[in-house]
Amino acid sequence: MPVITFEMTPMSKEQKQEIVKGFTETAVRVTGIPAEAFYVLIHENQEENVGVGGTLLADMED
Amino acid sequence: MPVITFEMTPMSKEQKQEIVKGFTETAVRVTGIPAEAFYVLIHENQEENVGVGGTLLADMED
Amino acid sequence: MPVITFEMTPMSKEQKQEIVKGFTETAVRVTGIPAEAFYVLIHENQEENVGVGGTLLADMED
Amino acid sequence: MPVITFEMTPMSKEQKQEIVKGFTETAVRVTGIPAEAFYVLIHENQEENVGVGGTLLADMED
Amino acid sequence: MPVITFEMTPMSKEQKQEIVKGFTETAVRVTGIPAEAFYVLIHENQEENVGVGGTLLADMED
Amino acid sequence: MPVITFEMTPMSKEQKQEIVKGFTETAVRVTGIPAEAFYVLIHENQEENVGVGGTLLADMED
Repeated sequence: MPVITFEMTPMSKEQKQEIVKGFTETAVRVTGIPAEAFYVLIHENQEENVGVGGTLLADMED
Repeated sequence: MPVITFEMTPMSKEQKQEIVKGFTETAVRVTGIPAEAFYVLIHENQEENVGVGGTLLADMED
Repeated sequence: MPVITFEMTPMSKEQKQEIVKGFTETAVRVTGIPAEAFYVLIHENQEENVGVGGTLLADMED
Repeated sequence: MPVITFEMTPMSKEQKQEIVKGFTETAVRVTGIPAEAFYVLIHENQEENVGVGGTLLADMED
Repeated sequence: MPVITFEMTPMSKEQKQEIVKGFTETAVRVTGIPAEAFYVLIHENQEENVGVGGTLLADMED
Repeated sequence: MPVITFEMTPMSKEQKQEIVKGFTETAVRVTGIPAEAFYVLIHENQEENVGVGGTLLADMED
């Protein structure tokens, strides 16, 4: 029943595949629970919807 | 103040209406709290953003 | 892969059994997904950790 | 490491800027943790994806 | 129906009162939604249950 | 600003250390974001607070 949620900005499909594979492998190794019991949810947040230090990512200069 | 969050793949409006109605009726019956206090949030996740057993739903064969 | 999270104040075990059973039955009926795929997580929050209208539940007079 | 999540309906960019600024200022003042440690995540939910009292916001008359 | 969740380490009751009051005042001012519609949930996480940069808070030297 | 939340049953401190280390290493490798930006939150749920297939974990026979 374990659920892993990843709050992130937009990613490519390849990145999502690697995240889901890597998180699940770590969780299986550490807990001993079978892989098929692990759910991973990826929430892609636009830069306008994320704040760090009181400022939106969308307003930060790189 | 109870909040029910439903992490799901995309649904039709009719399904959402039934989910919100059914979850709230169960919660009111079990807790005795008035219906208007219950909030339900539906998060629709694309199949590319959900992993089960280390694989994206988008990559699974039906 | 659906996940239902219920943010609530403390409940009895009997209430938890009924919530999990009722939410899952509704979700199965509406979505057609098999029951064993549904996870329900109950987060019990103390009244000191919940605010409504700017005031903690713990500070409200009944 | 504190994380503030705001589940809301759609907002303008100006509203998001003020929310992120205001929440972070309050959190810094109350906890004494430096502003740059605070993350704010804004989840904009369509009115069809929010229920109150068993009814979707999208189905309520104003 | 807005819900604000604050993921934090343990706080005093006075801090919780100020957080709930301050977040709600900001949200009311920015959105124009009445205060009584805002729910705030405070999740207090032990230092053993929070990681930053790959290390538990409980393992960091001050 | 990425946040990883792990909803799980109780774990040992050693398991938490490995989860936080492993998830963060995967996320850094896949996204290229520096490790110190990643927050991991572990929510330990009692077996009475988790349902699978409509039944509490606490009521399942091993």
